[in-house]
Amino acid sequence: MAGTDQTKKESAPAGATPAIVLVAPQLGENVGTAARAMLNFGLTELRLVSPRDGWPNPRARSAASGADIVIDGAKLYDESTAAVADLDYVIATTARPRDMVKPIFTPETAATKLREVIAGGGKAGILFGPERTGLTNDDVVLADAVLMVPVNPAFASLNLAQAVLLIGHEWFKAADRTPAERVEYQATRPATKEELLGFFEHLEGELDRFGFLKPPEKRPSMIRNIRNLFQRAGMTEQEVRTFRGIVAALSRREPKGD
Amino acid sequence: MAGTDQTKKESAPAGATPAIVLVAPQLGENVGTAARAMLNFGLTELRLVSPRDGWPNPRARSAASGADIVIDGAKLYDESTAAVADLDYVIATTARPRDMVKPIFTPETAATKLREVIAGGGKAGILFGPERTGLTNDDVVLADAVLMVPVNPAFASLNLAQAVLLIGHEWFKAADRTPAERVEYQATRPATKEELLGFFEHLEGELDRFGFLKPPEKRPSMIRNIRNLFQRAGMTEQEVRTFRGIVAALSRREPKGD
Repeated sequence: MAGTDQTKKESAPAGATPAIVLVAPQLGENVGTAARAMLNFGLTELRLVSPRDGWPNPRARSAASGADIVIDGAKLYDESTAAVADLDYVIATTARPRDMVKPIFTPETAATKLREVIAGGGKAGILFGPERTGLTNDDVVLADAVLMVPVNPAFASLNLAQAVLLIGHEWFKAADRTPAERVEYQATRPATKEELLGFFEHLEGELDRFGFLKPPEKRPSMIRNIRNLFQRAGMTEQEVRTFRGIVAALSRREPKGD
Repeated sequence: MAGTDQTKKESAPAGATPAIVLVAPQLGENVGTAARAMLNFGLTELRLVSPRDGWPNPRARSAASGADIVIDGAKLYDESTAAVADLDYVIATTARPRDMVKPIFTPETAATKLREVIAGGGKAGILFGPERTGLTNDDVVLADAVLMVPVNPAFASLNLAQAVLLIGHEWFKAADRTPAERVEYQATRPATKEELLGFFEHLEGELDRFGFLKPPEKRPSMIRNIRNLFQRAGMTEQEVRTFRGIVAALSRREPKGD
């Protein structure tokens, strides 16, 4: 604020996202598939440090499969230090532990941390190293924390776009409100208990008429078993009507099909 | 058990995993990258229903980048029904909602459910449709639940291997014990408070000697600020020694460098 020497941060613009910083990526195609994976999860800020095959790169655009907004907005840097200079918080992705004392996050923890930084008005970024070698230790030192994806130790190689995809997925999940489990009803709705009981009485009436619910001492438990199955299935109103139709069709004196 | 008509299930063999069922995959390369993504997260049982480009497929093996155990073990089926016949629980992956009343899971919920089924001795599988069109409604009907990956609605296309990767990741995570955040100490350990206090006293002694901690009424708060920074950094024993060396070097009467 005016009159103090403290820089007061604006709070993050709505939808602010961490920068994805690819350090010395080798293949343009991998930059493209990484851009595509970014946009799948709403990440749009791509930074490239000395891409080996130059920039712009037509193979990157083609591999991005329509994620042009990411490719067109990519910023180019000569050095990792320049690419992170305006950031407040940086996480380095590595496949193997480094001999450094630094917090190591799972992707989920990293996503939560990045959300916190950005919600507080900070700018954040995630560093990814070249395909073959990963980040140098000098690049890792630039970071506040390290991110390692837990994988099958016997087959641990993730490619660049896959690493970006998994981290993008966790970033997206951290703010996603999709219910863990849901059911969508389009032209129908769950049956009411009254509709369900009407169906049960219809079915049981016909079963009585055809002599199925015998002997009498078994009748109550047979009815409970039948009702339980339909309860468990969570019938819709439409399904109740369909099944009443089935019971009616099967209980006619003569088959009516032609 | 003998004498009853109930089939008693063996509990799942250690490490049992859900089958990945690719229905009518088009490109052999995509089967290969899906196999690679599977093995990254310890999934090894691949089932293929009428792969368009035939099987075995050299492009699949090449794209699998060493996930030969998955490629070599793949089983081939003519129909989806045959591919799921021995399974107890099936989840269908879809990119768009279908007009069906069926539970819709996030990848995380699906992973938890699959773990539960398998822990109970059941066999489980996940269906993936062809690249261009996804599963048919007749295939989705085979499933107990549907899995949709929440993605950026403005750019939602995930390729086959990416969908397998994300679901494999959630499967792996559901049983992974990696701490959310950890610090690895290789040749060192966190400094004890005694070591830290020794360093503070050394530093403050030199600062007093050089007249930095003035005026006297500010001295306590200056010390608190300095100590707070080093506390927050979580110094190691090695770092304490390094910083004591730095203080000693800087407080010599004459620079010693040559």
